[in-house]
Amino acid sequence: MNQFIIKSEVETPWGIARTGCLSTQHGDIQTPVFMPVATQGTVKSMSPQEVWDIGYRMILVNAYHLYLRPGPSLVSESGGLHTFMSWPGAVLSDSGGFQIFSLNDLAKVTEEGVSFKSHIDGSAQFLTPETVIETQLELGSDILMPLDHCITSNASHSELLEALERTNRWFERSLKQHRGRKGQLFGIVQGGLFEDLRTKSVEFLAASDLPGFAIGGLGVGESKAQMHEALDLVTKQLPQEKPRYLMGIGSPEDFVNCVCRGVDMFDCVLPTRVARNGALFTRFGRVDIHQSQYKNHWNPISNTCLCYTCSNFSLGYIHHLFKSREILGLRLATIHNLHFIHQLMDDLRLAIDNGNVEEFAMEFLAAYKPTNEEMRLQAKDRILRDN
Amino acid sequence: MNQFIIKSEVETPWGIARTGCLSTQHGDIQTPVFMPVATQGTVKSMSPQEVWDIGYRMILVNAYHLYLRPGPSLVSESGGLHTFMSWPGAVLSDSGGFQIFSLNDLAKVTEEGVSFKSHIDGSAQFLTPETVIETQLELGSDILMPLDHCITSNASHSELLEALERTNRWFERSLKQHRGRKGQLFGIVQGGLFEDLRTKSVEFLAASDLPGFAIGGLGVGESKAQMHEALDLVTKQLPQEKPRYLMGIGSPEDFVNCVCRGVDMFDCVLPTRVARNGALFTRFGRVDIHQSQYKNHWNPISNTCLCYTCSNFSLGYIHHLFKSREILGLRLATIHNLHFIHQLMDDLRLAIDNGNVEEFAMEFLAAYKPTNEEMRLQAKDRILRDN
Repeated sequence: MNQFIIKSEVETPWGIARTGCLSTQHGDIQTPVFMPVATQGTVKSMSPQEVWDIGYRMILVNAYHLYLRPGPSLVSESGGLHTFMSWPGAVLSDSGGFQIFSLNDLAKVTEEGVSFKSHIDGSAQFLTPETVIETQLELGSDILMPLDHCITSNASHSELLEALERTNRWFERSLKQHRGRKGQLFGIVQGGLFEDLRTKSVEFLAASDLPGFAIGGLGVGESKAQMHEALDLVTKQLPQEKPRYLMGIGSPEDFVNCVCRGVDMFDCVLPTRVARNGALFTRFGRVDIHQSQYKNHWNPISNTCLCYTCSNFSLGYIHHLFKSREILGLRLATIHNLHFIHQLMDDLRLAIDNGNVEEFAMEFLAAYKPTNEEMRLQAKDRILRDN
Repeated sequence: MNQFIIKSEVETPWGIARTGCLSTQHGDIQTPVFMPVATQGTVKSMSPQEVWDIGYRMILVNAYHLYLRPGPSLVSESGGLHTFMSWPGAVLSDSGGFQIFSLNDLAKVTEEGVSFKSHIDGSAQFLTPETVIETQLELGSDILMPLDHCITSNASHSELLEALERTNRWFERSLKQHRGRKGQLFGIVQGGLFEDLRTKSVEFLAASDLPGFAIGGLGVGESKAQMHEALDLVTKQLPQEKPRYLMGIGSPEDFVNCVCRGVDMFDCVLPTRVARNGALFTRFGRVDIHQSQYKNHWNPISNTCLCYTCSNFSLGYIHHLFKSREILGLRLATIHNLHFIHQLMDDLRLAIDNGNVEEFAMEFLAAYKPTNEEMRLQAKDRILRDN
């Protein structure tokens, strides 16, 4: 059975954009899709009903975080993650490879697995490709990610090669552990910014008949141009009929740029994280709700936005909530940003199906003022630490 | 026009309990009623839609807090508080007398008014009975409270007498300032625990044809027995046909005890505040969700509760959210506690109308284990500081 069906494909100046449908045990997902991040089993500040009401049908959780707390056996005992967190849609679980290495300066890699100290209580932990698959099976994930050895993208060629080869050996063990079990196990393309390593990684993974491919190791400090270059290389080489999931990206302009390059799936804490910092998405860029200019603005964030926030509250009220450090401020900002991204994905799908995604992208990118590079890297650094 | 109509009256061993209907510019309110507290223009952690969906039709805001931030002229410019915070129901605003004196050790009282430093930015502030009425008119409150001089209930007779006489003079100025303007101005009965002072206060206020009477200066450190004694005295003397609002009380057992003594209206931060501390109301007392015994409980807080929290989430999940310091934990706990209190008020009204409120109260109080006195006073202290 083919779990991914492509609906439309459109050539753009940057690659081939496409729409599709990804079938999971918990429903069909229209792609391109953004998955809100529920690191610890909740999309921060949101109820699952609110996430659903915006229109999301798939979220991402982090196996690393849930492994440490509350623990996979407990989640399994409760009836699985969908029951535990009352989420009727699909769940993709990240393996946590990225988090283990970014949250733990002292993580130690051996061929068997990785040992590290829990960021919660300092306890000694040891994870292997096999235990990471078992964790995700206990969670009941619809899409599973293998444990990978993540190192910074500006590491040397030999370091990246070594990490990639280990990631590949670990992937074979993951595949073996998962065979005949539930859910779809994706492969993760690594290799930093080196063309030969990315090619090597794709060729290795493409040899197995995988349900989908994640693209890892991007959005970790390189420039946007470098990210696009690596992405272009990988999407050209990956099997066209399988979904491509770009991990941990990103911002509104990233979604437009990368959908046009053939990416089908995204996750990122950015839309929810910056919301809690008071940054609200508009078609023209981010609004910083803390600015005193908003204290007496009685219009919504956007006059055309149909989200709960924009339907009921003014910029002035949201400004007051942030100044007063009220939880409702974080909620209203998060609802708006998640709605904005959901609407953007809807618009992109429609534009692809209508054959005018190039025009849509040009118009969007012309109007949208991205956050400057320095602020972007600072934000990335905070995201690494917090999620 | 009579703005309060009594529906049923039932004698109980503790007084005369009654149901009624209070008419406001923003709808009719069934009494006895609990008003959730939206100190800064939001019921902490809740959206106004959620408060409404539980069944609440009236909330309380604090004129002192909103005077300091965002300021009454700004709220007025936005279309009034109902528009500002997107609340279609009724609003009672507290004058903030209590907060001025409890949050400001250095508040200075003169005959003209009270000077103090803002707890937000330390700026010098001066409020008079007249400015406090104007603030509440700018907010657009349905029910207004006059500025009163609040001192601790264990102050001496002469101190309490002096504060009471000033409160009375201030009330005359408030009444004059409000005459012919919008909303209902209640009087506030003061006098600490002294019978002659409470009587003096009631007699003074009853001489004016007021739409309702608040009972202040209780729940501020005295024992429950002392509070009941003062309450019994006051409710016997107040005009029977007018609503009585017991300010800043309280806990589930307080509502039962005080409704049976003839109280019609309540507000308190306790149900929402203790929720955010992880204390969840049940018919048998509070559950502390932090306790490790709940980590693998897969039932809801209450099997018979119909709130969003109990309809969708287990104790084990809420425990995980609190352990992980996730905002959704605070939200689910608050929804449950507000639902519990709303249901309790519904039950009390029904029992009064059916003539069996004594039986209901006995049964409730027999099953409900109150929090012990020491914890109660500690909690009260925290509430004073935080709201």
